[in-house]
Amino acid sequence: MRRLEQVVERILRGERNAVARGISLVENEHTNATELLRLLYAHTGKAYRVGITGPPGAGKSTITNKLAKLYRSQQKRVGIIAVDPTSPFTGGALLGDRVRMTDVEMDDGVFIRSMASRGSLGGLSKKTKEAADVLDASGCDIVVFETVGVGQSELDIVRAADTTIVVLVPESGDSIQAMKAGLMEIADFFVVNKADRPGADQAVMSIKMVLQFKHGSDGWNPDVLKSFANEGKGIEEIAAQIEKHKEHLLTHNLLQSKRTERAIERVRELVNDRLRVEFWNDEREQKLLSEITKVTEKQKTPYDVVETLL
Amino acid sequence: MRRLEQVVERILRGERNAVARGISLVENEHTNATELLRLLYAHTGKAYRVGITGPPGAGKSTITNKLAKLYRSQQKRVGIIAVDPTSPFTGGALLGDRVRMTDVEMDDGVFIRSMASRGSLGGLSKKTKEAADVLDASGCDIVVFETVGVGQSELDIVRAADTTIVVLVPESGDSIQAMKAGLMEIADFFVVNKADRPGADQAVMSIKMVLQFKHGSDGWNPDVLKSFANEGKGIEEIAAQIEKHKEHLLTHNLLQSKRTERAIERVRELVNDRLRVEFWNDEREQKLLSEITKVTEKQKTPYDVVETLL
Repeated sequence: MRRLEQVVERILRGERNAVARGISLVENEHTNATELLRLLYAHTGKAYRVGITGPPGAGKSTITNKLAKLYRSQQKRVGIIAVDPTSPFTGGALLGDRVRMTDVEMDDGVFIRSMASRGSLGGLSKKTKEAADVLDASGCDIVVFETVGVGQSELDIVRAADTTIVVLVPESGDSIQAMKAGLMEIADFFVVNKADRPGADQAVMSIKMVLQFKHGSDGWNPDVLKSFANEGKGIEEIAAQIEKHKEHLLTHNLLQSKRTERAIERVRELVNDRLRVEFWNDEREQKLLSEITKVTEKQKTPYDVVETLL
Repeated sequence: MRRLEQVVERILRGERNAVARGISLVENEHTNATELLRLLYAHTGKAYRVGITGPPGAGKSTITNKLAKLYRSQQKRVGIIAVDPTSPFTGGALLGDRVRMTDVEMDDGVFIRSMASRGSLGGLSKKTKEAADVLDASGCDIVVFETVGVGQSELDIVRAADTTIVVLVPESGDSIQAMKAGLMEIADFFVVNKADRPGADQAVMSIKMVLQFKHGSDGWNPDVLKSFANEGKGIEEIAAQIEKHKEHLLTHNLLQSKRTERAIERVRELVNDRLRVEFWNDEREQKLLSEITKVTEKQKTPYDVVETLL
């Protein structure tokens, strides 16, 4: 454990390779990961967590990039966790354009980490939150989660944010449809990006129309901004809106209650993981395999096997 | 339980309102749901399960609609489970076009069920599989899962299919990017829909190029078809390709092994659910709430609370 404590100390000093190492421990579910997070925990809670989500191609990465640049100009430290499978951060672009992050990626005050979404079975949102804790403890002022906003696990990730931004583009009726996937409920504000394109104002209007029917229980009314992130337009307004929402949360004591909720969820997740891991020992795995042939031969149902195992 | 057995008998006779009732029990996690599924289990395994996935707007619903119509003309019974949040089946269209299912929806041999994806925390893929079992037992020859292919839980749903089709459109570089989200690995074949639009042949070529690098371990090489589903073009070819893949699975004994895998996963899911439900009794919930204040006050970490609870 001596070495783990060294890693912790180095993470707390904000050393990049220690941060990278820490996130890797978390990502690979290393046996020391939980102990690492336990040791770091007291040093978390300082970073403000921003979720940026929306359909592929809406410009989430560009906005994240420009926001990071803006925060850097204010001497803030920024952590970025990209879990969008189509994001250039994650190397997601296959045949499409690849937005380069050269603006910020070499800067010592910006830490970018991509988390694979494919192959990861449900553990993704847990791991992104843990990675955010590592970044938080390392002294980041802002942690940005960038994720494509369609699937359930992606929504779970965004729920870990203090402020959530949904990015859309003017022409996408698809995006508007995608809003049904829960985006309407999670957005603290909307950004219509690529607002140089026709239909931007109509898109803003449409969203505002739908928002009329949203009764926020927390006294916050989600606004709709426009941006043209490629040219850097609208980025300061986005940063200002994040700040405004943060002030709202602080004034109404909502940040604390959000974080308490999250701590509860965290404990639940950890307990459920442990229950699972402890139950599925070699003996039970063997039992499962021997019983399953009876299921495929229709002598037993999966429900009977469950009873046998429990 | 007398009434439950009646529901079972009526489901087995294929009575629509009993099927609807059965799926509702499953969807609402009714206390009788597991017993219902246990009683139905021996009658499952006859339906062939097809997953149709792809980005919003690719025409998945139209293809599903036309395929259902084709199967109906062959006197086959069809069940459709729509979990695409943007699907017209789920009433997902908010401001966009709403494809009507009038062609098939009134037909007694087609059963359409939409499953909400929002609000459902992780249980969605479990419920869709259970709904498919109900449809299977009710005598459906084909069960189609229609889902938007981006998130993890959506991919989990598609993994429950015997044959998985990924639908794309010519112009969407986005779609190609979205393929990185695991779609490349799960597609048994691709369909480039709306192939009347420019770029269809290039899109087919691009996908084939990427597919060259895919080494299927099961001896099956995913093909790329074209369709123009609005006009009904390419639907017979899609049905033929499904049949071809099915033959391949049967010839190589892969259908059986796929289904065994699925039965194993099913037992695992059920066990994990039970572990969770049994652990989180009132007493432990109370304990969690009383400990969590210590976490927010940084006297304890979530990891310590986990130890206390276990």
